Amino acid sequence: MSITSFHPPRRTLMGPGPSDVYSRVTEALSRPTIGHLDPMFVGMMDEVKQLLQYAFRTQNALTLPVSAPGSAGMETCFANLVEPGEKVIVCINGVFGIRMKENVERCGGETVIVQGEWGRAVDPAAVEETLKAHPDAVILAFVHAETSTGARSDAEKLCALARQHNCLTIVDAVTSLGGSELEVDAWGIDAIYSGTQKCLSCVPGLSPVSFNQRAVDKIQNRKTKVQSWFLDLNLVMGYWGKGAKRAYHHTAPVNALYALHEALVILQEEGIENSWKRHQLHHNALVAGLEAMGMSMVVPADERLAQLNLVTVPEGVDEAAVRAELLEAYNLEIGAGLGDFAGKVWRIGLMGCAATKTNALFCLGALEAVLGKSGGCKAAMEIYQK
Amino acid sequence: MSITSFHPPRRTLMGPGPSDVYSRVTEALSRPTIGHLDPMFVGMMDEVKQLLQYAFRTQNALTLPVSAPGSAGMETCFANLVEPGEKVIVCINGVFGIRMKENVERCGGETVIVQGEWGRAVDPAAVEETLKAHPDAVILAFVHAETSTGARSDAEKLCALARQHNCLTIVDAVTSLGGSELEVDAWGIDAIYSGTQKCLSCVPGLSPVSFNQRAVDKIQNRKTKVQSWFLDLNLVMGYWGKGAKRAYHHTAPVNALYALHEALVILQEEGIENSWKRHQLHHNALVAGLEAMGMSMVVPADERLAQLNLVTVPEGVDEAAVRAELLEAYNLEIGAGLGDFAGKVWRIGLMGCAATKTNALFCLGALEAVLGKSGGCKAAMEIYQK
Repeated sequence: MSITSFHPPRRTLMGPGPSDVYSRVTEALSRPTIGHLDPMFVGMMDEVKQLLQYAFRTQNALTLPVSAPGSAGMETCFANLVEPGEKVIVCINGVFGIRMKENVERCGGETVIVQGEWGRAVDPAAVEETLKAHPDAVILAFVHAETSTGARSDAEKLCALARQHNCLTIVDAVTSLGGSELEVDAWGIDAIYSGTQKCLSCVPGLSPVSFNQRAVDKIQNRKTKVQSWFLDLNLVMGYWGKGAKRAYHHTAPVNALYALHEALVILQEEGIENSWKRHQLHHNALVAGLEAMGMSMVVPADERLAQLNLVTVPEGVDEAAVRAELLEAYNLEIGAGLGDFAGKVWRIGLMGCAATKTNALFCLGALEAVLGKSGGCKAAMEIYQK
Repeated sequence: MSITSFHPPRRTLMGPGPSDVYSRVTEALSRPTIGHLDPMFVGMMDEVKQLLQYAFRTQNALTLPVSAPGSAGMETCFANLVEPGEKVIVCINGVFGIRMKENVERCGGETVIVQGEWGRAVDPAAVEETLKAHPDAVILAFVHAETSTGARSDAEKLCALARQHNCLTIVDAVTSLGGSELEVDAWGIDAIYSGTQKCLSCVPGLSPVSFNQRAVDKIQNRKTKVQSWFLDLNLVMGYWGKGAKRAYHHTAPVNALYALHEALVILQEEGIENSWKRHQLHHNALVAGLEAMGMSMVVPADERLAQLNLVTVPEGVDEAAVRAELLEAYNLEIGAGLGDFAGKVWRIGLMGCAATKTNALFCLGALEAVLGKSGGCKAAMEIYQK
């Protein structure tokens, strides 16, 4: 055996994530490792918390990055908030709702499903009906930005309904954080998790989470221990807690946290509302281009995510061959469909630093060439010139 | 709020981990992110598996890095192998044995404890007695290299005893992998987990694990679902499995895996036996230096880890003040005591690329200056000149 260093190709990442990473972020990633209890590192952790509060638009003290990918952030929410036997209403309109259901069941909870349509927002009326029919439910869980379908649900309305019916909310914001309007405090979200590899344009591997006091109270008053030692927030808080004193829990992924810090500094420099607007602009251009090429969007206009665009694969086209050609000849990655949408759609991401005019036009130009169509770039430019 | 980029100081890391990282590894870490299902990435994953098989000295097909720190690797072993109601014998001779017990209980298992002495190896006679007294036990769990005490246990002997009594073994090798002799196949270890931030000199955040066929059989024949979705190996195998076809499970920490790949390439270049010998040489020099300064080692010579040296804090010395001075004036990190040893010992790591003559002499020189002692460097040089 003789394996040598790995040198990845330089791709343009326009799939459902990971997205392209800021060069400032990869540079930060490679800074010298220091100890996870070093006073300098602890100071940086405090800044990461503040920057995450900015990104989540929250004052929640319990706001931190879980030391593992978004799926572990999801599990952190469910494992800490659900106790065996509790009833949880889960809205399913894509892959990640299904994963939520799986999480509840593995925590010993009972699920009530609000089944929605793939490619559509969660229906608030159906949620309200279910809340009324199950007054013993304690949690409502839904996905704000469904990465498998490109649909955005009305988190504000769903959280208001949950509160009226005395349910806590668990919200998946893996794909929305930094790319779509998201107001943890103003909307009354109780527990939320996200990822670093989408609209923050940081490397994958961490999951920012935030919990308000109602959620913390539930966690601190559990009758049973959290089934995961690694994800038990009662323990994690001892390391990420307030003040200089930190109790060792696990070895933090030091360099990944440098990267997240830098990505959040960049977000703060741009201003989060500007980031939302930027995603919307390039989305508008991309959609105009795709539609000018005769392609149709999967999600209705007012339920679409700007950062993740689902387009129907044109009849007679071998979708996998197109993706392979884009990857090999253009070094451009777009995403395949997932779950019910496998083989039927492409997922085109415009996330974080990949949400640019260059990327939108490059992707449209490449699709024109590979599909033998035209008019996409021109239509997009008209949006930019407005 | 205006937070700016974080620039860590350049430390020499001689604590219990994270250890100093190879510059080749941080350089690899900062290479361009590509998709976690990109064919080029999948090819690299296969190499990581092969390289981990080399490091673990195993042919186990189920050998991969868990996408989270060592504590999550521990939990992966227990959550997958322990079913509710099963009896697990846990050897406790430090902090990480206690954590194993906690893991078993959170999985609904019943623990039988073999209580050992802090700073000593696990006693095989006590383990044998316990195995005989509990013929219904299904797993024996112990720590090969106790990071809290610096003691190395006889994993070969303990695994042989477990097999005689029809128990599977779960072995913590977080601190031993790459630094101490470790033979997964030859010793018959059934399940093992490690970390990247110790003797591999990679950044923290991943946990290499390996499971043999006996362990895989138990996992595949569980009566209950693994309680963690994120750590369920039945699902993780779909992503890390054989062949080109990979099912999406979670977004892999792409850049961290570049780093691990590079660290393992470096290990392969050096040769793992050479790495073990190198750790031993610098350990011998460090110990000679510490003893020449009148300090005493905590662990008996034949049970010591080369890579993690526990030394008793001299009477009348403020141990925290010494560590603070080393950090501030020398940019040198050594570790504090943990658990029963808090305030009583220092933990001096010589791990991975930090196991060098320069580091051993630098640390001894700094301790001489701060403690007002002498003779340490000279005694260490005598070992090197032998």
